Amino acid sequence: MAKSDGFMAEALREARSAAERGEIPVGAVLVVDGAVIARSGNRTRADNDVTAHAEIAVIREGARLLGQERLSGADLYVTLEPCTMCAGAISFARIRRLYYGAEDPKGGAVDNGVRFFRQPTCHHVPEVYSGLAETEAARLLTDFFRPRRPT
Amino acid sequence: MAKSDGFMAEALREARSAAERGEIPVGAVLVVDGAVIARSGNRTRADNDVTAHAEIAVIREGARLLGQERLSGADLYVTLEPCTMCAGAISFARIRRLYYGAEDPKGGAVDNGVRFFRQPTCHHVPEVYSGLAETEAARLLTDFFRPRRPT
Repeated sequence: MAKSDGFMAEALREARSAAERGEIPVGAVLVVDGAVIARSGNRTRADNDVTAHAEIAVIREGARLLGQERLSGADLYVTLEPCTMCAGAISFARIRRLYYGAEDPKGGAVDNGVRFFRQPTCHHVPEVYSGLAETEAARLLTDFFRPRRPT
Repeated sequence: MAKSDGFMAEALREARSAAERGEIPVGAVLVVDGAVIARSGNRTRADNDVTAHAEIAVIREGARLLGQERLSGADLYVTLEPCTMCAGAISFARIRRLYYGAEDPKGGAVDNGVRFFRQPTCHHVPEVYSGLAETEAARLLTDFFRPRRPT
């Protein structure tokens, strides 16, 4: 198993754990020097905070642990394509590489929507790798929303 | 003085206070039922947190105070055009009206950059009013950055 698969597997565990808490199942881990230094699922409901997406949660935790705002050299693994808010945060945090699982045509902002990293108002662009474990990442979301939709 | 001018004056006070702390001088207040319920300047340096823009600080504080994620009915006053990250957060938080001061051609995302509120991946659009106290809002930023630029 490639190392990147292992880190995405950890992000998927965070996504599953989020679903069990009634949160939208998206998970992320932040990797520095080959080791996970922060992990989180989406926690918007638990924290009563619309900004508590998994990506922002690990960026905040990583910055706290490292004692610095900018996380140059850190890689972010997230199960779903980041939204507009998170794409902005990823750029501000100077994330080196972004690995994401499933695309999000409705809310994504990397390869869909505003494609923020390709815009002139984006001042730091991470390397982007997509499609890791995308089937499993997307299935978690489909399963989560299925019972809530009228049949 | 119109009420909106008074709220923007409070946001400007937060911006000035941010500058005194060595933070980029942007300030915001959150207004519910005609009263300010949260106020903050930019605090990215103090918090070691790239997401601690003034807008996100007051959204998080407002949500904490009200005990709910979504701030429908709340109005946000901010001295500078929100960036891509903050535009996303403002939409997620269901802010009713956004009043901003100076435009930000380099980093703004409302009337510049990705113009997020006009995109199909934006699922809640606030009413937007711009140009309130824009001269003073812009001057604070110019004064802040001037001594740091090589002459």
